[in-house]
Amino acid sequence: MMKKIKVGIIGATGYAGVELVRLLLLHPCVELTALSSVSYEGKKISQVYPNLKDICDEVLQNEDIIDKCDVVFTSLPHGLSEKFAAKCLANGVKMIDLGADFRLDSAEEYSKWYGKKYEEEDIHSQALYCIPELHRKQYISQPIIGNPGCYPTSIALGLAPAIGLAIDNTVVIDSKSGVTGAGRGLADNTHYPNCNEAFSPYKVAAHRHTPEIEQTLSKLKGKKVNVTFVPHLLPVNRGIVSTIYFNVDRPINAEELRELYATYYKDEKFVRVLELGEVANLRNVKYSNYCDISIHYDEHTQRAIIVSTIDNMVKGAAGQAIQNMNIMFKLDEDSGLNYIPPSF
Amino acid sequence: MMKKIKVGIIGATGYAGVELVRLLLLHPCVELTALSSVSYEGKKISQVYPNLKDICDEVLQNEDIIDKCDVVFTSLPHGLSEKFAAKCLANGVKMIDLGADFRLDSAEEYSKWYGKKYEEEDIHSQALYCIPELHRKQYISQPIIGNPGCYPTSIALGLAPAIGLAIDNTVVIDSKSGVTGAGRGLADNTHYPNCNEAFSPYKVAAHRHTPEIEQTLSKLKGKKVNVTFVPHLLPVNRGIVSTIYFNVDRPINAEELRELYATYYKDEKFVRVLELGEVANLRNVKYSNYCDISIHYDEHTQRAIIVSTIDNMVKGAAGQAIQNMNIMFKLDEDSGLNYIPPSF
Amino acid sequence: MMKKIKVGIIGATGYAGVELVRLLLLHPCVELTALSSVSYEGKKISQVYPNLKDICDEVLQNEDIIDKCDVVFTSLPHGLSEKFAAKCLANGVKMIDLGADFRLDSAEEYSKWYGKKYEEEDIHSQALYCIPELHRKQYISQPIIGNPGCYPTSIALGLAPAIGLAIDNTVVIDSKSGVTGAGRGLADNTHYPNCNEAFSPYKVAAHRHTPEIEQTLSKLKGKKVNVTFVPHLLPVNRGIVSTIYFNVDRPINAEELRELYATYYKDEKFVRVLELGEVANLRNVKYSNYCDISIHYDEHTQRAIIVSTIDNMVKGAAGQAIQNMNIMFKLDEDSGLNYIPPSF
Amino acid sequence: MMKKIKVGIIGATGYAGVELVRLLLLHPCVELTALSSVSYEGKKISQVYPNLKDICDEVLQNEDIIDKCDVVFTSLPHGLSEKFAAKCLANGVKMIDLGADFRLDSAEEYSKWYGKKYEEEDIHSQALYCIPELHRKQYISQPIIGNPGCYPTSIALGLAPAIGLAIDNTVVIDSKSGVTGAGRGLADNTHYPNCNEAFSPYKVAAHRHTPEIEQTLSKLKGKKVNVTFVPHLLPVNRGIVSTIYFNVDRPINAEELRELYATYYKDEKFVRVLELGEVANLRNVKYSNYCDISIHYDEHTQRAIIVSTIDNMVKGAAGQAIQNMNIMFKLDEDSGLNYIPPSF
Repeated sequence: MMKKIKVGIIGATGYAGVELVRLLLLHPCVELTALSSVSYEGKKISQVYPNLKDICDEVLQNEDIIDKCDVVFTSLPHGLSEKFAAKCLANGVKMIDLGADFRLDSAEEYSKWYGKKYEEEDIHSQALYCIPELHRKQYISQPIIGNPGCYPTSIALGLAPAIGLAIDNTVVIDSKSGVTGAGRGLADNTHYPNCNEAFSPYKVAAHRHTPEIEQTLSKLKGKKVNVTFVPHLLPVNRGIVSTIYFNVDRPINAEELRELYATYYKDEKFVRVLELGEVANLRNVKYSNYCDISIHYDEHTQRAIIVSTIDNMVKGAAGQAIQNMNIMFKLDEDSGLNYIPPSF
Repeated sequence: MMKKIKVGIIGATGYAGVELVRLLLLHPCVELTALSSVSYEGKKISQVYPNLKDICDEVLQNEDIIDKCDVVFTSLPHGLSEKFAAKCLANGVKMIDLGADFRLDSAEEYSKWYGKKYEEEDIHSQALYCIPELHRKQYISQPIIGNPGCYPTSIALGLAPAIGLAIDNTVVIDSKSGVTGAGRGLADNTHYPNCNEAFSPYKVAAHRHTPEIEQTLSKLKGKKVNVTFVPHLLPVNRGIVSTIYFNVDRPINAEELRELYATYYKDEKFVRVLELGEVANLRNVKYSNYCDISIHYDEHTQRAIIVSTIDNMVKGAAGQAIQNMNIMFKLDEDSGLNYIPPSF
Repeated sequence: MMKKIKVGIIGATGYAGVELVRLLLLHPCVELTALSSVSYEGKKISQVYPNLKDICDEVLQNEDIIDKCDVVFTSLPHGLSEKFAAKCLANGVKMIDLGADFRLDSAEEYSKWYGKKYEEEDIHSQALYCIPELHRKQYISQPIIGNPGCYPTSIALGLAPAIGLAIDNTVVIDSKSGVTGAGRGLADNTHYPNCNEAFSPYKVAAHRHTPEIEQTLSKLKGKKVNVTFVPHLLPVNRGIVSTIYFNVDRPINAEELRELYATYYKDEKFVRVLELGEVANLRNVKYSNYCDISIHYDEHTQRAIIVSTIDNMVKGAAGQAIQNMNIMFKLDEDSGLNYIPPSF
Repeated sequence: MMKKIKVGIIGATGYAGVELVRLLLLHPCVELTALSSVSYEGKKISQVYPNLKDICDEVLQNEDIIDKCDVVFTSLPHGLSEKFAAKCLANGVKMIDLGADFRLDSAEEYSKWYGKKYEEEDIHSQALYCIPELHRKQYISQPIIGNPGCYPTSIALGLAPAIGLAIDNTVVIDSKSGVTGAGRGLADNTHYPNCNEAFSPYKVAAHRHTPEIEQTLSKLKGKKVNVTFVPHLLPVNRGIVSTIYFNVDRPINAEELRELYATYYKDEKFVRVLELGEVANLRNVKYSNYCDISIHYDEHTQRAIIVSTIDNMVKGAAGQAIQNMNIMFKLDEDSGLNYIPPSF
């Protein structure tokens, strides 16, 4: 029997961190070796998340867990992951970062959007930004993977097959995210009476995921792509729906457009291209690693409309990170990820 | 003391109908004379809507109520209002139709989108389509008012000041509506476990409000405007948020754009143009007749982004209908509509 | 025309405070003279609550507002109202306290449950605890009214007609409250992802409203009443439902029980005793000052079951406080409170 | 390798049926052989439940599936399962009924509460009603298992350890269920705008689960137990919380009461007895087969308060049915049921 992979999580009590715990506990090839949380060191994780009682009563440790692990997931606010990356590299430990620190190629862009500088810029060349369906072929043996953001994942998967056809500067992305996307920290806009029976965009055309979205799309297209991106806070716990609009540079119809997507994703387990007439709905993917995409074409204005939906905490965070781990360790890519989205 | 206006409602047990009841009961110049409901004839309205117990225990009548009234509100599925309009005209009774039958100028467009023909086309020339802030000057003494749809109201108010600047075929409208917009009838997509913790567009680029939206915008611009319009079902009871994207035909910045809106609506009580940096949220308008509009400009792609929000059942239906009644009867336009949106 | 009552609110940015603002702005006999908020002094209230934009843009003041007012509403954490009461008494200004400081007769009970002592015990003898339907006859000219808690209001109204029949120590009260009951302060249990799609009791048999409930019931019955009271946090914004169980000391049936309630409340506008077979639902009272009560009798176990529901922020707080103000100023008791609960 | 169990589901498109599909697809010892649905015969199940697309695209069959199976789950409205039971018996196929037809010992009680008669009364003697934690020892080789109702499961688990101590006629059960408990059929009370931001009991002291609850408790206590049972409709998708009140017949304190529960369930994987001070919350068990129980004691009224929570669709339906299947086939009782409740 294969030796299990020793896995550690730094930032285990954030939302992405505890979702990693939930999924990794049932991964057949993983041994959850160490959980770290600065905020709750010394407590059991099941005291912080009582859903885990009797299932995972691990005591949360400080951050010195790297040398016990084969791979470490870091799930931290931006700016905190670099030092762990350096230590992982020094110890020959792999690392998958769920934060923003290994997503952007450009140090200037990072600095502009996140207000911090890369401290150790050379480390970043050893990291791969990886949405598996789009970038897995680029994985050789990079020791670090920058796990994509939730919005960028839904959008890149929704645009990849057609970005070549999109006319410059016609791409408008209207995304809606469930409240877990805002994380565990208390804030006015996530206080229940403020976001229940409410709806609004936020950070209009100013969200930090914008450069990440444009970086991925530009690489796919082979030239700079600019997009307008507006996220909205949706009164549900989980899920992202991105409604994506763009004009295409040639005569096309809905059938052809759908065929383009179906072909592009024909071997992908986790991307489901819906039939024409069907509409992607977050309720069909929640609690799973699936991305559902529906294809629409407005003849009237010659505009393509793509609806892409994922569970922000699974395909948009912890699930995709595990998919990346599976790639790193040459496991079946869906190992530990065979969750069936519930019907309700 | 002024004699009260005798008001009847045909279709009083639909969602817009019962919202009319709620608002008209407290209108200082109105006497609610007769409520009609085919489905519940003979029952008290408070048996159908127990929130009205002891407040309005009127018995629901058949449709023969026109001759008792000064004005009749019709709130019916499309295709059913024309015959009441004819009868109102014959009886010298005014009529405000909350359905779709008096919204479109073009009989062909009506027929194309609603699958029915105008039976009595000459009647339609006596009707005015009226969003008060945009069309009140056109009111002379038309006996019929076609009350606008909920989506078109949010969108027309959100685009009117700037439609002159919008570049052809760049207008994308991503709207989200609370579930009352789907009405009282039971359906799979409004079954609680199907729409709670769910989100999805519907009738993508194929919603019946599209021709109404384009008709209003085209008249405002003085040339044909085409838009891409995608509605979404939002898991809240009330409210519409329309996020509207378009490119402008001249150099502009956010300040200038906001100024344009502030000037346009400077005398309007029910339209609130937010300050730059603020974002319109449906929770600030629900249960009221307000329309909140926030102005954003994406320098990066030179795209204007307007967020317009209303309560779909008030400004998007019953409240606006009463505003139109006030115009018809030369009352203060806000008479009976001074509801303050609650904080939660 | 009657001179308007000058009203001030201390604690105007808490949930009960801002609900007072909303309701008092439309009260025909009130002039809202001064709003005080320690947390937001110097800001406009509409900056804190943008729903009030253009409707109430008053600047929030410090606490020195008493001498400008005829009556002051205090809506503060417990222990902070006494000093304002003293100042009101000194200035001949009336006061209505929405907090807990003037609810309990017994200084010991207050101290036991709230962990603070009455500083000026003699003040309390000048205060009347007043649920209007039960205590209005006790109002002579007391300068202070202790406005009842939300749970106690729903429970006292639900039990008053039958408490004389209830067998000792059989009263079980299972209450469920919307999240606004927890107030404006951020907390883990009111973070959206924690209370959406969740449900749980809290402070089981240990909630501070217990002594207030027992005090009211004991006075009504003329002997000490003990109850088991368990509140639950309900994932809705507003409303309380109290399901109340007790055994009765004589043979009775549902009709007789209902008759008892109907007679008791026959002249009460704001209490609606439902017909047998109907069940009280918070959706029928929200945003209004009504209390709906349904009556049930379990023949099988000879147990009466009363369901009592109110809007926690209106009849359970701001609305009842205004009802008490109306009593103090000899206005019609429903003045400014004629809100019709919306159908959705 | 063990041969897989051939499983069929009759009523696969009801809520419990499709939840069975979701769970059984990942059961390591099961081959899902045939899915039957009268309403959707000939359609793929993934057309009815698009969350199953590409995961389970089985075509729904008519009811003639028994002879292909080792065991059949029936998930049907009451009164429809007997004929399948007869056929299963004739074919030597095991059956687990998720409906109400094999839950009550007494034909009269069944007839009284369900308005139908047992057609073939002798069949019922071959069925075992089985909440595994309470009744697994009674399983010998009965060919039919009557799977318990959702409310009764939460209540029986919550009362079993202490029912011996409960004083006669003091048991009050106040239960709250998510909306999936009402099933897939459209109804006014489950129309989104009617149950969102709403709360109410229903079938007060008249719910069909009452005789099932009393039957189980009476057997455990060895004498007739009467309870007052009031269910409420909770605006969440999933989960039941039962708050259970009773007086005990001896001096006791919270520690002793908890110890009683902890001992009773010490070997049970799926029942978690919380520590004193913790409160059971449905969010900690949803999407899992766990039952969380918290123990409280009101010294003041000498009343025990037990809070028991389950996921109504898993431990309250499909999960428990699979647990029963595992018992029937001598598998590990948790086989296929190792779901970890998500944190949000």
